Amino acid sequence: MEHSFGSDNHSGIHPRILEAIIKANTGHVPAYGDDLYTAEASDTIREIFSPNAEVYFVFNGTGANVLALRSITRPFNAIFCADTAHVWENECGAPECHTGCKFIALPSTDGKINTEQMIPHLAVKGNPHHNQPGAVTVALSTEVGTLYTPDEIKELADFAHANGMFLHIDGTRLANAIAALGCTAQQLVTETGVDLLSFGGTKNGMLGGESVIYLNAELGRNASYERKQLMQLNSKMRFTAAQFEAYLSDGLWLENARHANAMASYLAGQIGDLVEIPYPVQTNMVFARIPQRAIKPLSEKGYYRNVNPADPCILRWVCSFDTTKEDIDALAFALRESLV
Amino acid sequence: MEHSFGSDNHSGIHPRILEAIIKANTGHVPAYGDDLYTAEASDTIREIFSPNAEVYFVFNGTGANVLALRSITRPFNAIFCADTAHVWENECGAPECHTGCKFIALPSTDGKINTEQMIPHLAVKGNPHHNQPGAVTVALSTEVGTLYTPDEIKELADFAHANGMFLHIDGTRLANAIAALGCTAQQLVTETGVDLLSFGGTKNGMLGGESVIYLNAELGRNASYERKQLMQLNSKMRFTAAQFEAYLSDGLWLENARHANAMASYLAGQIGDLVEIPYPVQTNMVFARIPQRAIKPLSEKGYYRNVNPADPCILRWVCSFDTTKEDIDALAFALRESLV
Amino acid sequence: MEHSFGSDNHSGIHPRILEAIIKANTGHVPAYGDDLYTAEASDTIREIFSPNAEVYFVFNGTGANVLALRSITRPFNAIFCADTAHVWENECGAPECHTGCKFIALPSTDGKINTEQMIPHLAVKGNPHHNQPGAVTVALSTEVGTLYTPDEIKELADFAHANGMFLHIDGTRLANAIAALGCTAQQLVTETGVDLLSFGGTKNGMLGGESVIYLNAELGRNASYERKQLMQLNSKMRFTAAQFEAYLSDGLWLENARHANAMASYLAGQIGDLVEIPYPVQTNMVFARIPQRAIKPLSEKGYYRNVNPADPCILRWVCSFDTTKEDIDALAFALRESLV
Amino acid sequence: MEHSFGSDNHSGIHPRILEAIIKANTGHVPAYGDDLYTAEASDTIREIFSPNAEVYFVFNGTGANVLALRSITRPFNAIFCADTAHVWENECGAPECHTGCKFIALPSTDGKINTEQMIPHLAVKGNPHHNQPGAVTVALSTEVGTLYTPDEIKELADFAHANGMFLHIDGTRLANAIAALGCTAQQLVTETGVDLLSFGGTKNGMLGGESVIYLNAELGRNASYERKQLMQLNSKMRFTAAQFEAYLSDGLWLENARHANAMASYLAGQIGDLVEIPYPVQTNMVFARIPQRAIKPLSEKGYYRNVNPADPCILRWVCSFDTTKEDIDALAFALRESLV
Repeated sequence: MEHSFGSDNHSGIHPRILEAIIKANTGHVPAYGDDLYTAEASDTIREIFSPNAEVYFVFNGTGANVLALRSITRPFNAIFCADTAHVWENECGAPECHTGCKFIALPSTDGKINTEQMIPHLAVKGNPHHNQPGAVTVALSTEVGTLYTPDEIKELADFAHANGMFLHIDGTRLANAIAALGCTAQQLVTETGVDLLSFGGTKNGMLGGESVIYLNAELGRNASYERKQLMQLNSKMRFTAAQFEAYLSDGLWLENARHANAMASYLAGQIGDLVEIPYPVQTNMVFARIPQRAIKPLSEKGYYRNVNPADPCILRWVCSFDTTKEDIDALAFALRESLV
Repeated sequence: MEHSFGSDNHSGIHPRILEAIIKANTGHVPAYGDDLYTAEASDTIREIFSPNAEVYFVFNGTGANVLALRSITRPFNAIFCADTAHVWENECGAPECHTGCKFIALPSTDGKINTEQMIPHLAVKGNPHHNQPGAVTVALSTEVGTLYTPDEIKELADFAHANGMFLHIDGTRLANAIAALGCTAQQLVTETGVDLLSFGGTKNGMLGGESVIYLNAELGRNASYERKQLMQLNSKMRFTAAQFEAYLSDGLWLENARHANAMASYLAGQIGDLVEIPYPVQTNMVFARIPQRAIKPLSEKGYYRNVNPADPCILRWVCSFDTTKEDIDALAFALRESLV
Repeated sequence: MEHSFGSDNHSGIHPRILEAIIKANTGHVPAYGDDLYTAEASDTIREIFSPNAEVYFVFNGTGANVLALRSITRPFNAIFCADTAHVWENECGAPECHTGCKFIALPSTDGKINTEQMIPHLAVKGNPHHNQPGAVTVALSTEVGTLYTPDEIKELADFAHANGMFLHIDGTRLANAIAALGCTAQQLVTETGVDLLSFGGTKNGMLGGESVIYLNAELGRNASYERKQLMQLNSKMRFTAAQFEAYLSDGLWLENARHANAMASYLAGQIGDLVEIPYPVQTNMVFARIPQRAIKPLSEKGYYRNVNPADPCILRWVCSFDTTKEDIDALAFALRESLV
Repeated sequence: MEHSFGSDNHSGIHPRILEAIIKANTGHVPAYGDDLYTAEASDTIREIFSPNAEVYFVFNGTGANVLALRSITRPFNAIFCADTAHVWENECGAPECHTGCKFIALPSTDGKINTEQMIPHLAVKGNPHHNQPGAVTVALSTEVGTLYTPDEIKELADFAHANGMFLHIDGTRLANAIAALGCTAQQLVTETGVDLLSFGGTKNGMLGGESVIYLNAELGRNASYERKQLMQLNSKMRFTAAQFEAYLSDGLWLENARHANAMASYLAGQIGDLVEIPYPVQTNMVFARIPQRAIKPLSEKGYYRNVNPADPCILRWVCSFDTTKEDIDALAFALRESLV
């Protein structure tokens, strides 16, 4: 297959991560995370995020989000999210099904929500006919590639806490966010008061692996049982852990993210005069509104990537750690041709 | 307490229904519905709705809605409803929690939704990342007291069936709807193709009792187990059944509903020049938009009935089987005074 | 129907309770428990059980058990019960389904379990592959009509607390237990350390009504939301509350229970020489092992009451508030004839 | 770490499978299974099991079991299993929690159950107070390393079908069973009437990957949605599929299994005169009952592998694809010393 801009999970395994898997394939190792690889990778995450964090590796992003949200709610709660949120739109209802909660999907602007929007929904507090506000979840970077600043995250966290809620970050693309913001993980999620996050690796060079990081360690006190019950406990955990260690210990995660972000920026530059780009390009995604007539030619070349079933003219292109300028030039060329 | 317009469930038991309870209190009777009262009341429902209907009595409206919706879905389904729907707004998430489904709350007009609004959401069919359309549920009469005509119901049913979905009616106030439409139950829900409905009595003169009626009897094949598991199986069922028999066998349900509807119409007439009435008054409810300054005086007199936590200036007044013109005159008088 | 010994819920409404319903049927009253009847009945329960108790009225026994058990667990917990427990055997899996927990049904002796039996199961504590011990639930009186003494309850409570668990009592027939033990409710459940209980009225003279009493009030802090979500919030609550008030305020609950217990004792005396009575007769139930040939004649007379689907020769006869010696004499006569 | 006999998932990745992962790491590939690797591996599974099978790759064994059991039940069902079953004992309640069903854990003999044991439990059919029999699940090979013959499987399947149930096989170690029985997969699970199975690879040389195979393809019609909702849809599916292809296309699965089985047989021979071996050694596991005094010395050498929290003197040793005679000799030596 040609280079795909369909998603960053169309890419493969970064060579340094594959090497780590190969190296970890030595002899016997206890299963289910009772191994030194897991201990080491967990420590590395603690160094990056917070010395007090509890770390749980899981299989995939939906699993991470469900484990995290289930840890901080009971079924009578409500969870605030953006109407573009992956937990709301793209997980086949797993978050509703496994938490039992009602999700309140707020209209987003550039994929983002703010505290103002939640205030009217707090009026139900204490009323037994309504789900009680329990959590706020936002994606960083968002599903449309945009960013919350540390100040915005702090505002969300303060608001959540002032109203008896927890703040969760869906960080499947947190690396791209941190790379773009130029801050540290601690500045972005620890010092701002985030309670817990899903932190991903699959979309940024790993074979597969995600994690839930409880910055508020108390919230993770039951996570080992909940992870198992939620079918997210990997028996051969060493291979997840070894990937994370290679990903994190030497800066690879930010290196990959910076590259992907830069490629998206380059892409936006190449096509910005051809099509409307409906969202600011801040990380590794570029959205484009194309005319109906361009669908067929772009599809034939493999460059048609619609993510909104209800609107076939909004495309999303995602750059990954291995996207090259040549790949982008080919895409831009194809787009230009399709518009003729 | 003075007469309340807060809800039709603030009223008590109609004398003829209380008499039926007293009469049923004779000797021993098998529990859990294996009794003649239950058989008789079920037959009466079948006479009214359809000879093929399966009937299950339950405790309350939320229980009826959950049993009904759980019967026709699996957790990966989506259920369409109005954004004003009781199942969406007022049941503390019971429908989400017990079905596991995602609810898609469509923006309603006068409390109603239409088939056009669902079409864009059908684009996800076959896509494993999205809940699959499984059911449509509408309230009749709606939560703002409005009506779907038989033609509109038929259009919803046809659309549901054409797209592999079922149509459920939340009929907690179906009596008011039928009374207002001047049609028969068969014309409104059976001949239009409704698959199953929640059919209530509590709000229209019963001590307490609701039911799920499966017009598509096949859908009810597991209802006896699901009702029990959903904690809706009454051991002393004879008393629910006896109420339904008294309610239905002699026209009391429509008599009560017609009266409540007429009182709402009278109320609207008395106050229509004083305040904005945001929804058409078609059954037994009147909504009013009042100025902020009226809240305190109306509250002091017990006439402040807000149902929208986010907007304290929208009031709802509901008439019941025992509302009198004097009750309404007193309310209208209080309203007039509050506006001075 | 002749007098039934099938269950105490085959009986009707005690006249004093019916009278209370009739009296409560006056004018309008706020719904969902915001009424004076509910406040009064809750206070009466607090007088009987504990001044600190939180009280929630619900529809039925399964609803009470599920609300109680859901309040004290999360889905990764295990709940210990007897293998004869109603929550295990007779609720169509509602407790498993709505708590998500694993139930560990311990082999019972005369319907009872003890702390020794739980110890081996505690070895899994901290092991993520196993549900973590979270609660103990026992019925009092038990499903075979036997009793735990206050000392035994205290031992269960102490054991539960020492191991990070809560103790729940399924008190659908608590009145029969208290009447038989000759102690007070406080001595039996409050001073022994019980955390919360399901406390029933339906089987002892009420039209219908149960409750969850949180002696550990903190455990009930979310009960108003959970009750609603679990479909157990009665809109016309005044009628449940008025029943409880009539049931409890004047000693009727114990009066009825003492009578039913005495009748069971009388029944055991009449038939003890005819059949094996496999469980001690301590409250209002008598079990009997009959020969195969007696099934048909007893069935024809309406005295065949099997509760164990797997063993048709074990019968259960339950006495209620309105059972008379004549009813029992007729049963004893039929039994004698069936054995000829 | 020395060679571990703790579980076959303490082993690493077989070189031929690792090589397949490396080879699959070429360029971009569509995510979520829309790729040629997945198509190819699915076809290979169909060749081995049945041309009509539907195949769904998942992350782990618990995920496979839950997806399979959820596909064939509704929450009011009961599922029969052995009291030693992994779904009952070792998955932190995931099967109960996610199906909502009651599990009926039958006393097993050598880890196996039979149709006779289920018959008494069928007496509840049609009774709404009891979960309705819906499925039978057995492990093959079992959790104690024993085997059902094809005839026994056929008897279970026929019994299940005759009673309105489905038969599921937990085949996390199906390779070991087929290798030991010397039959084909079709003879063992397809021709016997098995409806669906969990089929594993993780414990037999894969980095990680399991599958659900619907031999009754109709049962899998919703599996793509349920897999996603159950958090078991791998985005970089090509790497799971490539492993399965390497595992299955060239006989590696049976080669590995035969080796592991042979090693267990050798181990049993070496230690059979030293300790009691409570279960027949038929596949790749050896259980041993050791005296209390041996626990400490075996623990110090890393050979203490207890799997029954309630009985520390029952050990389990599992051989894997990379176990050598030297590993076993070392274990036997350590055991001999510990018994001195």
